[in-house]
Amino acid sequence: MSETDFVHPKAVELGKLAVRMTSVAGSGHPSSALSLTHIVTLLMYRHMRWDPSDPWDERADRLVLSEGHAVPIIYAAYADLGGMVGRSREDAHALTVTDVEQLRELQSELDGHPNPAEGFPFFDAATGSLGQGLSVGAGLAAAARTRGIEKRIFVLIGDGEAREGQIWEAADFVVDHKLSNVCAVFNCNGEGQADDVSAQQSADALERKMAAFGWEAVQIDGHDPAALDEQLGRVGSTRKPLAIIARTVKGWGAPSLQEGNWHGKPPKRSDLEKVEAELDETLSKLGGGGGSGTTRPTAPAQARPARASGGEKAMVSFEEACERNGFGAALKEGKLATRRAYGVALTELGRVDPRVVALDGDVRNSTFSDMFLKAFPDRFFECKIAEQNMVSVAVGMAAGGKLPFVSTFAKFLSRAYDQVELALIGRANIKLVGSHAGVSLGPDGPSQMSLPDVAYFRSFSRVDDGSGRNACTVFLPSDAVAAYRLTELMARHDGMCYMRTHRPDVSFLYPFDASFEVGGSHRLREGADLTLVGSGYMVTVALEAAERLAGEGVGCNVFDAYTLPLNCEPVLSAAKETNGRILVVEDNYAGGVHAELAEAAAAAGDVRVAGMTCRRVPKSGRTAEDVLRLVGLSVDDIVSKAREVVA
Amino acid sequence: MSETDFVHPKAVELGKLAVRMTSVAGSGHPSSALSLTHIVTLLMYRHMRWDPSDPWDERADRLVLSEGHAVPIIYAAYADLGGMVGRSREDAHALTVTDVEQLRELQSELDGHPNPAEGFPFFDAATGSLGQGLSVGAGLAAAARTRGIEKRIFVLIGDGEAREGQIWEAADFVVDHKLSNVCAVFNCNGEGQADDVSAQQSADALERKMAAFGWEAVQIDGHDPAALDEQLGRVGSTRKPLAIIARTVKGWGAPSLQEGNWHGKPPKRSDLEKVEAELDETLSKLGGGGGSGTTRPTAPAQARPARASGGEKAMVSFEEACERNGFGAALKEGKLATRRAYGVALTELGRVDPRVVALDGDVRNSTFSDMFLKAFPDRFFECKIAEQNMVSVAVGMAAGGKLPFVSTFAKFLSRAYDQVELALIGRANIKLVGSHAGVSLGPDGPSQMSLPDVAYFRSFSRVDDGSGRNACTVFLPSDAVAAYRLTELMARHDGMCYMRTHRPDVSFLYPFDASFEVGGSHRLREGADLTLVGSGYMVTVALEAAERLAGEGVGCNVFDAYTLPLNCEPVLSAAKETNGRILVVEDNYAGGVHAELAEAAAAAGDVRVAGMTCRRVPKSGRTAEDVLRLVGLSVDDIVSKAREVVA
Repeated sequence: MSETDFVHPKAVELGKLAVRMTSVAGSGHPSSALSLTHIVTLLMYRHMRWDPSDPWDERADRLVLSEGHAVPIIYAAYADLGGMVGRSREDAHALTVTDVEQLRELQSELDGHPNPAEGFPFFDAATGSLGQGLSVGAGLAAAARTRGIEKRIFVLIGDGEAREGQIWEAADFVVDHKLSNVCAVFNCNGEGQADDVSAQQSADALERKMAAFGWEAVQIDGHDPAALDEQLGRVGSTRKPLAIIARTVKGWGAPSLQEGNWHGKPPKRSDLEKVEAELDETLSKLGGGGGSGTTRPTAPAQARPARASGGEKAMVSFEEACERNGFGAALKEGKLATRRAYGVALTELGRVDPRVVALDGDVRNSTFSDMFLKAFPDRFFECKIAEQNMVSVAVGMAAGGKLPFVSTFAKFLSRAYDQVELALIGRANIKLVGSHAGVSLGPDGPSQMSLPDVAYFRSFSRVDDGSGRNACTVFLPSDAVAAYRLTELMARHDGMCYMRTHRPDVSFLYPFDASFEVGGSHRLREGADLTLVGSGYMVTVALEAAERLAGEGVGCNVFDAYTLPLNCEPVLSAAKETNGRILVVEDNYAGGVHAELAEAAAAAGDVRVAGMTCRRVPKSGRTAEDVLRLVGLSVDDIVSKAREVVA
Repeated sequence: MSETDFVHPKAVELGKLAVRMTSVAGSGHPSSALSLTHIVTLLMYRHMRWDPSDPWDERADRLVLSEGHAVPIIYAAYADLGGMVGRSREDAHALTVTDVEQLRELQSELDGHPNPAEGFPFFDAATGSLGQGLSVGAGLAAAARTRGIEKRIFVLIGDGEAREGQIWEAADFVVDHKLSNVCAVFNCNGEGQADDVSAQQSADALERKMAAFGWEAVQIDGHDPAALDEQLGRVGSTRKPLAIIARTVKGWGAPSLQEGNWHGKPPKRSDLEKVEAELDETLSKLGGGGGSGTTRPTAPAQARPARASGGEKAMVSFEEACERNGFGAALKEGKLATRRAYGVALTELGRVDPRVVALDGDVRNSTFSDMFLKAFPDRFFECKIAEQNMVSVAVGMAAGGKLPFVSTFAKFLSRAYDQVELALIGRANIKLVGSHAGVSLGPDGPSQMSLPDVAYFRSFSRVDDGSGRNACTVFLPSDAVAAYRLTELMARHDGMCYMRTHRPDVSFLYPFDASFEVGGSHRLREGADLTLVGSGYMVTVALEAAERLAGEGVGCNVFDAYTLPLNCEPVLSAAKETNGRILVVEDNYAGGVHAELAEAAAAAGDVRVAGMTCRRVPKSGRTAEDVLRLVGLSVDDIVSKAREVVA
């Protein structure tokens, strides 16, 4: 009896369980699950080196289910193996085959799509929005390599989802970074949700494409245990990364789930017996029953790696950091761009925290992450012009014990907002830094300016991630000192953070030893008539307006609201001393600091808040001031509005 | 003398002009522009059939500059040809070679990156965020085909930007839809911004990849006029779409712009003469000077097509529409999902407006755009699982005279937010419809739920697009009647619209002849103690809460805030009759209707506004009610909060 004789019986057993759980839950994707049943059986019982009682083991091989909707087949195998589930190691318990009937229940760890955050630690990232898994796998592989861990990453990709461009971004990244411990398994069942998969995503087409992208591509029958066994056994030992193009059958083994459109549709409970009988019949036709061979996975053999740690040592002072990173002159000149200060901070952070890695998308000489590259070439990952892949790679790296800082133009980060949200759903501890935000970019025009970003990230900052923390924290540094300290704060803060930096050099607004905190704001100027609140670049503009207003006899408090969620109380309190009047100025579209303060004020009812945000889609202008004028945010505009508010 | 002898002299002339304009502007990308100089010369002077005095001509061949930063070379050619610029046909004037020195000026039509909205009608879409052009080109080609216009679309793509996955989504789409009148020209100069382009984007790699994607791929020297002439001459007559992989030199002709990193950096004005001398010397080495052959493009020969028009005829009544589209029973049952009503509306819209086309991403049986497919198979475009491409294709279609409705899950639209913003910058008249929004999706979990979308689109709804209109209008239908009428409103409204539909069937809240307007809201219930405001699915929940509260003696106004920007005045006025108290309930993250009303109330200062948005990142629950409870939006939660607000 061959070593793969256990496969058909196990595949049928898992298939039955997968169908059953969707039927009990009343929703889910049994037919997609059935198409993966042999692949998952060979991976989870034989090829992956892992221990079901310790899914947190960093040495273990990992599986990324990119086509997240097929997850019932994983839950079935995991339950059969008694894998541990739970929101923490302390609370964990072994999953049973009865538990799986809780699929998609509010209290269950078995979410509709993979999500480690809700208690399924076998997965490293939330998936379910398609096309993201190969990038996550690449990030896991890269993190393992930098930590000297020898493990393999298996990524299961649907044929239909291979239409997502991100798959091809990831394919390039894997080759660029020589991550041949990543294996892409394409599940070619030929059927999408609404229709057949396009001929552009046929097994033949995918084989041609992967080969053209520099992978070794092999096409096999995805229900042939011997063929799967042979190819999966090669992973990690091929010169090029291996892509296994597996031809499969949607609803494998159960003819009644193959006729008509069964995508995302479980059988009625009354039809379950029939489907199970079909699966049994399929098995008996294959001559199955019993079967020996491996039926438990092997645990990893390598010694446990040192625990990833860091973040204890403090960064040096801002002055020292500037001096030793080539910006000593700026200290005397009295000005430095926030993006440059970010480069300085990232580099200093690298020195005190070995977990820190940096990713950039071909703009490192603009975001200043190139300073980190020079200091730590092995911890820098050039992702080229492919932001979606970059964000999902960072998610994989975070799951692999790294602390990834992702930088590009803030505008280009918006290319990856779907990936950002999946990262947030899976509670990935990644740090996003968008440069050239707002309109101060001037001549390059609106295609390079990030403007809805503050509203977008604020929406996350106001929601609990399920563990009692806000799902995302936003940092809006107004000067280089703030950018330096807020970069440090991001590293210390557990959870997703977004920071916005600006292109122009700006004068220092803070003493070099100023301190900052999550939720905080600083009063930079006092006055009796109006509380003027700015963020980022607009703090400089607001201070200039305040100076002008002072000349007209209008005294302004000026606040720098440098984080979201913002603790609004100090600002509202201060406003009570300025006749209850606040004016917020922001170089972004509506929905940022103004909305934050307006919501707080409208709830309390004793302070009035006016706001100025970008009022026109920008265009190019030769200077930042030109564009600020166009969008209604010049010093003149603020002075006029302030007069109106205090009148 | 051959027909291409004019090319080298013209290329040098245009190159000089491109360098000059960036030098005068003090910013821009001269070296990228120089790498395209021969390609642009052959296209704009010889191969494209177009008339510089009528860039609006729908019969004309089109050029899409995907790598938008190289735009100075287009401006140079356009000025040399005296092409018309202007924000409208009436205000247009011929561009001159002196005008180009206004590059990136606030008043100039020559923005830093291509943008038709600011007065450069030669372009069809804003580009500059990379990787979007091939999709736009595909949309232009598809629109032309449906209108019987024989034209060719040339898309210029940078090698570095070919890393963006969207390029590969577009490559698939072009093949799927047999758009062999699209030509992709890859500008392989080998240099990115921060570093060399990856070997994964070398000319050889791109040739292999495009061939694997089903294109005819040819590799040539991009500065060889004869080779370019030959290949460009084949466009439209090949069996497969043609990809021309052109090896080029960044900073062609000017050695001083080739040493070191000149990406995005113009020479100083004092160095201009030197660069011009270098270009002259390059020309003399090539034996150039003078030269005959074609030096003006040829205008299109085909007869002018009928003007695209539509939108005059009214849609039939909601009842009739339901009856004749298979939802007659719903009228009696008294309930229908908003997404189903969208399918009905889209189909009826198709009947009265021939411009309407529909695009979907393999979920048409969930969004109900499949109803449109059945009625109008030639006007439906299945884009498969590739949302970025889908949105940019729609932009191209809109530019080609169509009225595209793009539907997918609202969550998956977020995959294309960068493309959405570029569409908005270029003022593309596209309609985006996201289904399964909010948490009422229940069992499928957060990876399928759209939650930051309202904040994101609201940020656009509050900004002027430069022509006096808000850049985006958001529609939030609460029932099927609203969804039907708001779909019609979207078609009538000139400019980008976003509509959010929900999965569950909901009871009719409106009489079948109810009417709706942009900025409007409806009061669905009256009460004296509290003004309760909901949107979308939450209106149904709010009405249930109001009923419960009435039983406790708390009378509620209930408003349906169905659009953003919202005319807040009626709601605030009504609230004054309910002790100045408003409670807003939304099944999305913060930044939507609550922020809208809070900003208005905080400015006026006489009404207090509380808000309830999704307070936790959701997970799966078996029912919508389960998940509403988890995120703090159940009827119980609303009733408690209402009690607190009125206390």
